[in-house]
Amino acid sequence: MNSIAPTTPWHLLPPDVTEIEQAAERIRGVLVMTPLLESERLNRRLGGRLLVKAEGLQRTGSFKARGAWNCLSLLSSEERARGVVAFSSGNHGQAVAWAGQKLGTGTVVVAMPADAPAAKIERTRGWGAEVVLYDRATEDREALGKRLSVERGLVLVPPYDDRRVIAGAGTVGLEVAQQAAALGAEPDALLVCCAGGGLTAGCALAWEARLPSAKVFGVEPEGFDDTARSLAAGRRLGNEPGARSICDAVLAPMPGALTFSINAPRLGGVVVVSDDDALAAMRTAFEEFGLVAEPGGAVALAAVISGRHAIEGRTVAVVLTGANVDPAVYARAVLDGRPS
Amino acid sequence: MNSIAPTTPWHLLPPDVTEIEQAAERIRGVLVMTPLLESERLNRRLGGRLLVKAEGLQRTGSFKARGAWNCLSLLSSEERARGVVAFSSGNHGQAVAWAGQKLGTGTVVVAMPADAPAAKIERTRGWGAEVVLYDRATEDREALGKRLSVERGLVLVPPYDDRRVIAGAGTVGLEVAQQAAALGAEPDALLVCCAGGGLTAGCALAWEARLPSAKVFGVEPEGFDDTARSLAAGRRLGNEPGARSICDAVLAPMPGALTFSINAPRLGGVVVVSDDDALAAMRTAFEEFGLVAEPGGAVALAAVISGRHAIEGRTVAVVLTGANVDPAVYARAVLDGRPS
Repeated sequence: MNSIAPTTPWHLLPPDVTEIEQAAERIRGVLVMTPLLESERLNRRLGGRLLVKAEGLQRTGSFKARGAWNCLSLLSSEERARGVVAFSSGNHGQAVAWAGQKLGTGTVVVAMPADAPAAKIERTRGWGAEVVLYDRATEDREALGKRLSVERGLVLVPPYDDRRVIAGAGTVGLEVAQQAAALGAEPDALLVCCAGGGLTAGCALAWEARLPSAKVFGVEPEGFDDTARSLAAGRRLGNEPGARSICDAVLAPMPGALTFSINAPRLGGVVVVSDDDALAAMRTAFEEFGLVAEPGGAVALAAVISGRHAIEGRTVAVVLTGANVDPAVYARAVLDGRPS
Repeated sequence: MNSIAPTTPWHLLPPDVTEIEQAAERIRGVLVMTPLLESERLNRRLGGRLLVKAEGLQRTGSFKARGAWNCLSLLSSEERARGVVAFSSGNHGQAVAWAGQKLGTGTVVVAMPADAPAAKIERTRGWGAEVVLYDRATEDREALGKRLSVERGLVLVPPYDDRRVIAGAGTVGLEVAQQAAALGAEPDALLVCCAGGGLTAGCALAWEARLPSAKVFGVEPEGFDDTARSLAAGRRLGNEPGARSICDAVLAPMPGALTFSINAPRLGGVVVVSDDDALAAMRTAFEEFGLVAEPGGAVALAAVISGRHAIEGRTVAVVLTGANVDPAVYARAVLDGRPS
């Protein structure tokens, strides 16, 4: 675990739960209070109680709108006038472009991998952003984002290693805790997808304060289990170059420094799922909940459906984090739940 | 319009808004308060404000759970012990089976057309119901339901022509009115699918009380525009035998006597859409909202998306009423939005 020097800038320090609560106030009326659903049929099959947070119904189709809105809301009017830049595998980019347009931000530039789903790129442009494509295999997206920030005088809005983005993502955890209580449910675990670790970190902080007896787990796709390996090693490790997964939304090169410092002492563990598991979970979301899920957004549900995280006799919450999936991939998932 | 004789039994008289409010209390905590969503991108395209009630997220995957729960809750313990029978194109059957199991009803028998989607039949059985299949083209489902009721001493739970079922369905209208107000929206129309007319009637009664300046519209698929033709004729007319549509959930033989008596003086009109329109709306629900919609459940959205009910410069609400669709039909819809 990396230590954080006392000279670390404010936005690279962990938020506390008060900031997550403030973020929840800030998003109220702008973002969707997505429902927490359950299926009695599925519960019966699993032998436990599964609560599913339908975050694919969120503005821009993923939880990323929370962090983007919170972060851009906290910029000064001078910063907003200058404009912002984000690097993103797709959902964060859309979210920053959306929030930027809605908040009247000057320029919005988003760096996205050239192989991101076409709809994600097109929608980011649709929110008025300038999209800069990069090669996921050979280019360093973080360095590209920083360079664009310096060269064009734009404020960088990182996808996870930022106190304001983590606080925004943590509102998912606050809502799940509230909504579970309203259902009379007492979950002992919350599973969320983990790429850079921002959602995981925000939820871990929220649940530490609200449901201290429960644990938050990260879920990663095979080949991108950097957080799992980093936790085991006690320090941040990257993924092997060349790994591939259909879970495009959750493929980060390595855990964030800030997110890992939050997650390492708090997570109950990390579950690793296959692409097949993700596709089967997409079909479950279709059949049992009437919800569209993208592959990366379905990994937490996949951890439960696959039996890798058994919930027999227990109450567990999972977040379906996004719904931005290309139609062809989605059709394959609902037709057979297996990759083509 | 048929007149109702003063000797009409209680359950064949129209409910008032108080009964819809009581139904809303009855379903609280048991059914889902489904969200009212909007897509800024779609609003921009349509030039108006479209509010979408995501009722496919409801228990059993359709709004039918509301009427079924309300009706079965109002039975005496003696009636519940005897058991119930329903006839249904699929969603009402599932809903009655679910409510019956949850309320500890003795026997539940559901008559369904043999060509109903396989998943609907299987799920109805999954809730413990005995399914009796009939031929949609040659058999009279209402007569079959009545015969089963008499022969086996079961209480008939009709799909729409019942005061308790209409009051339950009307809770959709109450919720949309409340949720629209919370969003600061003032809709001037609510569009819902119209088969037998129960949802239409319940919503028309709810909006008459809550949003008297707005109008409720029914939406029917081509070939099953019985309510449209009945309104024009001033009396109930049936559909031509042999008509076909992929919108299996909204194919009733003719308007109900009770529902038509409620709808005729209240509806703003009826919009008729094609199967192609329904498929395109299913794709819109997928792309813009991350919601699964079945063909019949998408017809109200289809009325707007197709331009048959233009919303330019206006605020309009639609209900996506169900999500119970066979995977192959759904895959076709998301891949091209056109029938195969």
